[in-house]
Amino acid sequence: MQDNRSQPLGVYSPVVTPFNDDLTVNSDKLINQCKWLLSQNVGLAIFGTNSEANSLSVDEKIFLLDKLIDHGVAPDKLMPGTGCCAITDTIKLTKHAVKLGCSGVLMLPPFYYKTVDDAGLFNYFSNVIESVNDDRLRIYLYHIPPIAMVGVSLNLIETLLTKYPQHIAGIKDSSGDWSNTQRMLDENWDDFSIFAGSESFLLKTMQAGGSGCISATANINPKNIFDVYKNWQLSDAPKMQEKINAVRSIVQNYPLIPALKCIISHFHEDQNWNILRPPLTSLNHSDSKKLITELTSINFTLGTKNQ
Amino acid sequence: MQDNRSQPLGVYSPVVTPFNDDLTVNSDKLINQCKWLLSQNVGLAIFGTNSEANSLSVDEKIFLLDKLIDHGVAPDKLMPGTGCCAITDTIKLTKHAVKLGCSGVLMLPPFYYKTVDDAGLFNYFSNVIESVNDDRLRIYLYHIPPIAMVGVSLNLIETLLTKYPQHIAGIKDSSGDWSNTQRMLDENWDDFSIFAGSESFLLKTMQAGGSGCISATANINPKNIFDVYKNWQLSDAPKMQEKINAVRSIVQNYPLIPALKCIISHFHEDQNWNILRPPLTSLNHSDSKKLITELTSINFTLGTKNQ
Repeated sequence: MQDNRSQPLGVYSPVVTPFNDDLTVNSDKLINQCKWLLSQNVGLAIFGTNSEANSLSVDEKIFLLDKLIDHGVAPDKLMPGTGCCAITDTIKLTKHAVKLGCSGVLMLPPFYYKTVDDAGLFNYFSNVIESVNDDRLRIYLYHIPPIAMVGVSLNLIETLLTKYPQHIAGIKDSSGDWSNTQRMLDENWDDFSIFAGSESFLLKTMQAGGSGCISATANINPKNIFDVYKNWQLSDAPKMQEKINAVRSIVQNYPLIPALKCIISHFHEDQNWNILRPPLTSLNHSDSKKLITELTSINFTLGTKNQ
Repeated sequence: MQDNRSQPLGVYSPVVTPFNDDLTVNSDKLINQCKWLLSQNVGLAIFGTNSEANSLSVDEKIFLLDKLIDHGVAPDKLMPGTGCCAITDTIKLTKHAVKLGCSGVLMLPPFYYKTVDDAGLFNYFSNVIESVNDDRLRIYLYHIPPIAMVGVSLNLIETLLTKYPQHIAGIKDSSGDWSNTQRMLDENWDDFSIFAGSESFLLKTMQAGGSGCISATANINPKNIFDVYKNWQLSDAPKMQEKINAVRSIVQNYPLIPALKCIISHFHEDQNWNILRPPLTSLNHSDSKKLITELTSINFTLGTKNQ
C-alpha cells in the first residue's frame, strides 16, 4: 500500500489570506504569497485557522483553489483545509480538492456542537470518506482543541486507521501539548504522518519520528523553519531551532493572525495586508510598532521578498 | 420608529430538521412539522441549534426557506437562524431571508475564532447590516455561550443598539444564566425583545417584561408552552409553568436534539425521525425506551398529531 501514497512535504504554512478594502479576497496577492512560500520549500496548507478559513465561504474556497491551480501552483504542494461544520460542505470542498489533485486535505472535525463523542465523529469522517469515494483522498486530521473545542482523540484515530488505512494519512497536532504528540508518535502507526502545529516542537518532532510541522509562523519565517526540518540530524540543529524559537517567542505575544499580517504588511510596504475579515481585527498602531521593533532588534527579515 | 416594527410572536421553536436515510433533508416532513407548530401558535425559528443548522450548508438553508414559503408557510412567522462562521455566508443567507419577508433573523456571532473582542464582533454585525442594506432587516442576537463559546455581551448590544436601533430587534438568551437575562431586562432598551432560551424561564421572563421564549422543547410541547405565554398574568400561570417544567425536566436529562427526535419519532410512529446528521447520533435503544416511559408516566402526548 505504501507505494501508492504520496509523501507530504516537511513544512507547511497555513497561508494567510489577503483581503481588499471591501473585504473580498485579493487572489493575485494570495497567488504571489503561495509562490513565494513554495520558493522557500514550504507547502501550502491554505484554508487553515491562520488563513481565516472559517471566515471564507465554501464557494470562495473553491474559487481560490481553482485560481491557484490555474496560475501554476502545483496541486501536489497543496494541503487545503476542508473541514467545515456541515458535512455537506466538507464533502463538497474535499471532493473538489481531490479532483484537482491536491496531495492531501487538512480536516477539522465539525466544531459547532460540543458534546459529540468519538462514535459521532467516526460517523462523520466515515461518511465524508465514503461520499468523496476517491482512492486519491488523503486526510490529515486537524487537532486544535484550544480553538475548535472539539478534538481528535487517539481512540478516534485508531478506529479510523483500522477502517480507512488508505485515506487517513496523518495529523496536525495544534493542542500545544507535547505529551499528546508524544503519545501519538509512540503509537507508531503505519503510513501516518505526524506534524507539530508549531515550529517550537519541530526538532523534537523530527527526533521522535514525526514528519514536520504545519505552522502559522512559516508564513513569515519559512526558510529558517525549513532549515531545521532539513538539517535536524546535524549537530547544528539545536542552534537552528533556537533561532526559529526567537522569532516565534516574539510573534506569539500578539494575536497571531493580525501579527503575521502586520509583519507581511510592514516588509512588503503594503498597508492592505493588514486587513482581516471581521470578527478579527488588525493590530493597533502601538502594538504594530512594538512588534516590528522587537523583530528588527533580532535582525529579522522576510528573506526573499514576495513580488 | 415603533410603528414600522413588526411584533414578534411569543413562543418560537427551533424546528428540528428531518432527514432521509441518505442524510438529505426531508423537506416535506419539515413543511408538515412547521405547519403543525404554527397551528399550535408557535413561530418558526428554523435553522437554530436544535435544528442542526450548523450541519446544513447555506445552499441547503436557502433551498428550504424557499420551499417552506412556496408551500404556504407565512414568512412573518419565520425567524430563521442566519449567523454563520463566515461573514459572506451570513450576509448571503440574511439577505435571502429578508428578501423573502421573514419577520426577523436569529443571528449567532461568528463562532470559530475564540479570542475575539466586542470591537471585532461589532465590526462583524455592522458589516452584515450595511451589506444586507434593507430597512426590513430585524436581527435577534443569539447568545448561547455554552455551545458557540463566543457570546453577546451587554456592552455589545448597547453599542449595536446605539448605531442600529432599527435593525437590532432583540435577543435569545441561551446562557442558562438567569442573572444575565435579568441584567438585560433591567436595561429597558427600547423596542428590544428579550426571549428566554428555555421555557423553564418563561413565566419569570414575562413577569420581568420579556417577550417570550425560543425553546427546543416547543418542538414537542408547543401548546402548553404557549399557554404559559398567553396566560402569564393569570393566577393559574405558576401551575401551568410547573406543567411545562415537568416535561422539560425529563427531556433535558438526555442529549436534547436526539431526545426531541426520539419523541417525535415515537408519537408519529416514523423511525426516520430518529435520523441525525453526523457528528450527532440518535439515542440508543435503552435511553429511547426510558425517555418514552418517563414521558408516558406523566401522561405526555404530542397533542394534535402532525400529518
